[in-house]
Amino acid sequence: MTRVLLAGASGFVGGSVLRALLDRGHEVDAVARRGGQARERVRWHATDLLEPGAAEALVTELEPELMLDLAWYAEHGRFWDSTENLRWVDATLRLAHAFTEARGRRALIAGSCAEYAWGPALLRENDSALEPSTLYGAAKHATHVVAAALAAQGHSELVWGRLFFLYGPGEHPDRLVAAVARSLIAGERVATSEGAQVRDFMHVDDAARALVELLESPVTGAVNVASGLGVSVREVVTMIGELTAGLDHVDFGAIATRAGEPERLVADVARLREEVGFTPAIALRDGLDATVRWWREQPALP
Amino acid sequence: MTRVLLAGASGFVGGSVLRALLDRGHEVDAVARRGGQARERVRWHATDLLEPGAAEALVTELEPELMLDLAWYAEHGRFWDSTENLRWVDATLRLAHAFTEARGRRALIAGSCAEYAWGPALLRENDSALEPSTLYGAAKHATHVVAAALAAQGHSELVWGRLFFLYGPGEHPDRLVAAVARSLIAGERVATSEGAQVRDFMHVDDAARALVELLESPVTGAVNVASGLGVSVREVVTMIGELTAGLDHVDFGAIATRAGEPERLVADVARLREEVGFTPAIALRDGLDATVRWWREQPALP
Repeated sequence: MTRVLLAGASGFVGGSVLRALLDRGHEVDAVARRGGQARERVRWHATDLLEPGAAEALVTELEPELMLDLAWYAEHGRFWDSTENLRWVDATLRLAHAFTEARGRRALIAGSCAEYAWGPALLRENDSALEPSTLYGAAKHATHVVAAALAAQGHSELVWGRLFFLYGPGEHPDRLVAAVARSLIAGERVATSEGAQVRDFMHVDDAARALVELLESPVTGAVNVASGLGVSVREVVTMIGELTAGLDHVDFGAIATRAGEPERLVADVARLREEVGFTPAIALRDGLDATVRWWREQPALP
Repeated sequence: MTRVLLAGASGFVGGSVLRALLDRGHEVDAVARRGGQARERVRWHATDLLEPGAAEALVTELEPELMLDLAWYAEHGRFWDSTENLRWVDATLRLAHAFTEARGRRALIAGSCAEYAWGPALLRENDSALEPSTLYGAAKHATHVVAAALAAQGHSELVWGRLFFLYGPGEHPDRLVAAVARSLIAGERVATSEGAQVRDFMHVDDAARALVELLESPVTGAVNVASGLGVSVREVVTMIGELTAGLDHVDFGAIATRAGEPERLVADVARLREEVGFTPAIALRDGLDATVRWWREQPALP
């Protein structure tokens, strides 16, 4: 058992990571702007990491040995080009710096597939070009570059977990899986693109377990946290249609594919599989089934 | 004639760039923490860009069309690994963001050869690996990544001028050329390494003119600002020895070469030569001669 500082503990991924840390027997110092629900082995810290000095004060107090940092601006539909990304570069670097100053041993910070130059070849950590086409991807990549240099000169370990396309219960209701599931459960029609784009989908609980195993491993540097399997958006929507018995309510091709939408974004997961030893446990259909069942239990959104 | 916002106007490079801008007929809004000496066509702004809101206020007031940003932490012997570099990432990105928000047309920000993975091959802007081995290099590279994304989404032009090894009058007295010149002028002995390391040296006035021509050009992206000529440290020290008639006071090999010191760091300057059309005007021996003469005129330092 170790005490882990978990920043961004109240988000979609953070909630799942918190459970995964507890499952593995850790105690957690959970950081979120508004705190969170009390539970055993969790100490909540209601801290806004954007506030000057906040990260420094927290880390000085807690002296964490391990840190898992998921905190970032993530507002659906806005995060790609918001200049909030600049504030999170600074906040994340201040936290990473405070962590090494307090002699933290090992930090895992969340990166993104948006750091890569998007292209059809498998995206590989140490080969693929890092040429982000969005401000979000640029901000994440820049943060990695500096955090890695800070860790190197502070003699702490840094692992950078590049997340791909996550889905699962608790996801923002307007994101693909959630939006299609909600509409079909409600018996509404769903207009989608042809859905030929291929993406690397992973259930958030698999991603959370991967992040925790990565934190516990000795692996450093960038590691893709993904399934390694390419699935078309059409296949995903079709599965949700079958699981909700609403497939005839889906109008494929009713919406044009967004301009500049990359054809294929799939991770090479050799590092995660071979160096960390992680294997996903949740097959796509099972994960979508669980997600659909979760949405059935939610009160309808306005 | 255009009005140019020059940030970092009081530094070693900034002073020379200020003269070069005036030579080319520009008016200058010169920014430095403590302001500077009054002269025609220069408006000084005593602004600390690290202060929250300072960059934003300045740019909102001035609405610059062109910006040349040299401001960064540059304390000799400290800047490589100082965490001041983190504050300058943030300050530079806030300035770049404010500039695009104010509909600035074109910005040139100073980068560094420290952004590259140091190796013996010519360092080329769009080919060579960007794997900085210092916090300073990482911070500069990270700033470029994000500033480029900001410029792209703000529809402004960004050019990133990677400076190599500059020398000239006004340089910090403890840097190589200055230190050797001062000691030999004073008749003191100079202990150096064997000096086999090859570097790309450029006179600061050539670099300043290159930066101004780059700002005036339509070229965007990363551009090396360098001579393209590799010269060994031994050759440079030998020239200074000859120019001061103090060569017999130099003890080559008296100091071990620093561990990890790269053998050869030389820029590919095809972009600067061919796309910008810039050619250096100051041969190394002439530049060193002018520098030695300048140091002769300075009062001895304590």
